[in-house]
Amino acid sequence: MIRLRYLISFATIILPLVSFGQLTVNQQRIEKRITELSQFGKDANGRGYRVAYTKGDIEGRNYFMGLMRNAGLDVSVDNAGNIIGKRKGKDPLLKPLAFGSHLDMVPDGGNYDGCLGSVGALELIEILNENKVITRHPLELIVFSNEEGGTDGSAAMAGNFNPEALKLKTQSGLTIAEGIKSIGGNPDNIKAAARKKGDLATFVELHIEQGGLLEKEKLQIGVVEGIVGIEHWEVTVEGFANHAGTTPMNMRSDALLAAAKFIIAVNEEITKVPGRQVGTVGKIAALPGAFNVIPGKVNLGLEIRDLNYEKIWQLFKAIEQRAKNIEKESRTHFAFTYQNNASKPALTDKSIQDKIVDAVKSLGLSYQYMQSGAGHDAQEISTIAPVGMIFVPSVGGISHSPKEFTKGIDMANGANVLLKTILAIDQQ
Amino acid sequence: MIRLRYLISFATIILPLVSFGQLTVNQQRIEKRITELSQFGKDANGRGYRVAYTKGDIEGRNYFMGLMRNAGLDVSVDNAGNIIGKRKGKDPLLKPLAFGSHLDMVPDGGNYDGCLGSVGALELIEILNENKVITRHPLELIVFSNEEGGTDGSAAMAGNFNPEALKLKTQSGLTIAEGIKSIGGNPDNIKAAARKKGDLATFVELHIEQGGLLEKEKLQIGVVEGIVGIEHWEVTVEGFANHAGTTPMNMRSDALLAAAKFIIAVNEEITKVPGRQVGTVGKIAALPGAFNVIPGKVNLGLEIRDLNYEKIWQLFKAIEQRAKNIEKESRTHFAFTYQNNASKPALTDKSIQDKIVDAVKSLGLSYQYMQSGAGHDAQEISTIAPVGMIFVPSVGGISHSPKEFTKGIDMANGANVLLKTILAIDQQ
Repeated sequence: MIRLRYLISFATIILPLVSFGQLTVNQQRIEKRITELSQFGKDANGRGYRVAYTKGDIEGRNYFMGLMRNAGLDVSVDNAGNIIGKRKGKDPLLKPLAFGSHLDMVPDGGNYDGCLGSVGALELIEILNENKVITRHPLELIVFSNEEGGTDGSAAMAGNFNPEALKLKTQSGLTIAEGIKSIGGNPDNIKAAARKKGDLATFVELHIEQGGLLEKEKLQIGVVEGIVGIEHWEVTVEGFANHAGTTPMNMRSDALLAAAKFIIAVNEEITKVPGRQVGTVGKIAALPGAFNVIPGKVNLGLEIRDLNYEKIWQLFKAIEQRAKNIEKESRTHFAFTYQNNASKPALTDKSIQDKIVDAVKSLGLSYQYMQSGAGHDAQEISTIAPVGMIFVPSVGGISHSPKEFTKGIDMANGANVLLKTILAIDQQ
Repeated sequence: MIRLRYLISFATIILPLVSFGQLTVNQQRIEKRITELSQFGKDANGRGYRVAYTKGDIEGRNYFMGLMRNAGLDVSVDNAGNIIGKRKGKDPLLKPLAFGSHLDMVPDGGNYDGCLGSVGALELIEILNENKVITRHPLELIVFSNEEGGTDGSAAMAGNFNPEALKLKTQSGLTIAEGIKSIGGNPDNIKAAARKKGDLATFVELHIEQGGLLEKEKLQIGVVEGIVGIEHWEVTVEGFANHAGTTPMNMRSDALLAAAKFIIAVNEEITKVPGRQVGTVGKIAALPGAFNVIPGKVNLGLEIRDLNYEKIWQLFKAIEQRAKNIEKESRTHFAFTYQNNASKPALTDKSIQDKIVDAVKSLGLSYQYMQSGAGHDAQEISTIAPVGMIFVPSVGGISHSPKEFTKGIDMANGANVLLKTILAIDQQ
């Protein structure tokens, strides 16, 4: 205890000025842990498979909780299945600084999405341990449950989880309720997983970019300004199914031809205004769907994402108007069904952004401000705490694919930025 | 026998000049039989269901064979399941004049496609019987089996049926071999159903138009010049599946956006040259197919039909060139797989066309020459005999739908034209 006290006061006085600048993560250990995580569960192709609530997810979580305990963290699982590893700080009156990400993956996904943020967060703890640093704030390493299924764990922690969703089937074959039970949570009282606004002093998430902008610009770090909002519409195009041999071209009501014009119109409307908005038609079905029948009906999915919520709806209105024009020239009818299941934009905290930039600069790294086009746990947590996000490059911009890859040096850079950012927040 | 001989010579001498012109079909009987046929089999919506080899098809065939026998025809079923009703002529050295169509329907089909040709053919026999007319040629009323499944019965009669196809599953759930057995055929020796070139003096088929040209032009009869050839290609568009949130618009390889441009290009290439060719993209699938993933692969089906075989391939080459241009601007790759399962164009016999036109004029009906965009049994039979086809209007151009409808007066007009045409051929 005496020794600990000594260290604490040593750290308090000396480390912020001298040693903190030299704390550096262990790149080899990060890479080793990413590789080890990739071995849990197996899909039909022999690749690691850690879809939430599956055997691989449970094994990966157990492996990781073992590492967390070895690192001295006080590990528990909350009612939503989130893994929380606590490390005491010097000032018991301060609220915890939280950081982390998730371990579950999409089916046929990659080994970096979520894992880097979790492994990088644990690396922060390891480095503090190795350098015998005790922060002023308590720390919490959080591994959220079922991020890929809909940021369920972080939504529950933020008090945004609708218990109705517990009945929904997940990719694992289990319902969310069954899945949460399988990983040690208690779905019957999932509300107890909620933290109040202010319970966490901050939350910072390190993550792979999942896009190709950093690589394209040859930059090392992305300082995330916000996580885009996402809206979905089911679009139905009604034409008239008819014989493809006997119906002349000028007498058709071809729903697929109208849908083709719509897909192009979506692309034109999204790209014709400046900004980083994206719009996607990702799914389509034409009915009845045969070589020799003019499609009478097409169902498709429209998604629009932007950091500015009003802009999403402005773009939608422009697209809707284009559909009206297509209707007239193609004897079809368009109907839009708003899905109301997507997410609102979430801005990151400006002062955390500043600390990330300071950390990047002190490490001599290159960076840019950017938005996150993907949803993240930080998006949910932003409703109860100031959040920050650090991106590192994804090779080829590929994500949600077995080809997902981030170089070891980029992972280490990101973990170093996380470490320095948390220490800077701790010192403020 | 004396009486019969007397009738024969009377018919030979007098009827061509006088009575033939007054023979008129019974519209009410045609309508009654069409309605009765529509009652066999039931689908989930309580509608008649006579898909080949199903209970409804078998019941409908039995009903119709009963009518044929009542009309004095010598009824048999050949090895391919075709129903053949023979009526002797005066000159045993002449080859038969054949006419007819089919009774089977597509799933969710209508009550006129095929049925009108069969009922109209039987009406011809009834009128000859009622007027005690014996033709010079023997007559054959043929109801072909499984037309909608691929003109199987007529292909077998024309010697064009590939026995490999016997193993294929049909809409009924049975293989073609099992189906042929269920309707009284003998698939083990299906070759015996083949007739040699010249075995039939002619084949004439009455059919609903299955398109809207006659109705649009307010014409009563279509004199079919030929049945279009049909070619199919499976088209694959390869892009790159990626995260719809994190992949900027200008860094995408969106296979569905490229496919949309292709669908429009098909429409443009087909419609920009004069003629009655049609081109259709009737089916499409985008993979992986989710709101939030940029489609990495699209499969679609391309069909082109025209009476001129070379023109089909010229149009295809133009479409293929458009795909090459789309590839360049969209970072995608197009591949075309020729299906080689479709049908060559079939021209009808000019002298039969002339006789149809004479019949139309003598009846004071309006007409136009036209092509058949749909495949028909006559197409197969054209390889072994001169064929003719008579079209009557489809209300709204609708076919292969429960909404398929042809007015009683139009059915009667068509049957009268068939009757007069067969009698004219008989007299030549």
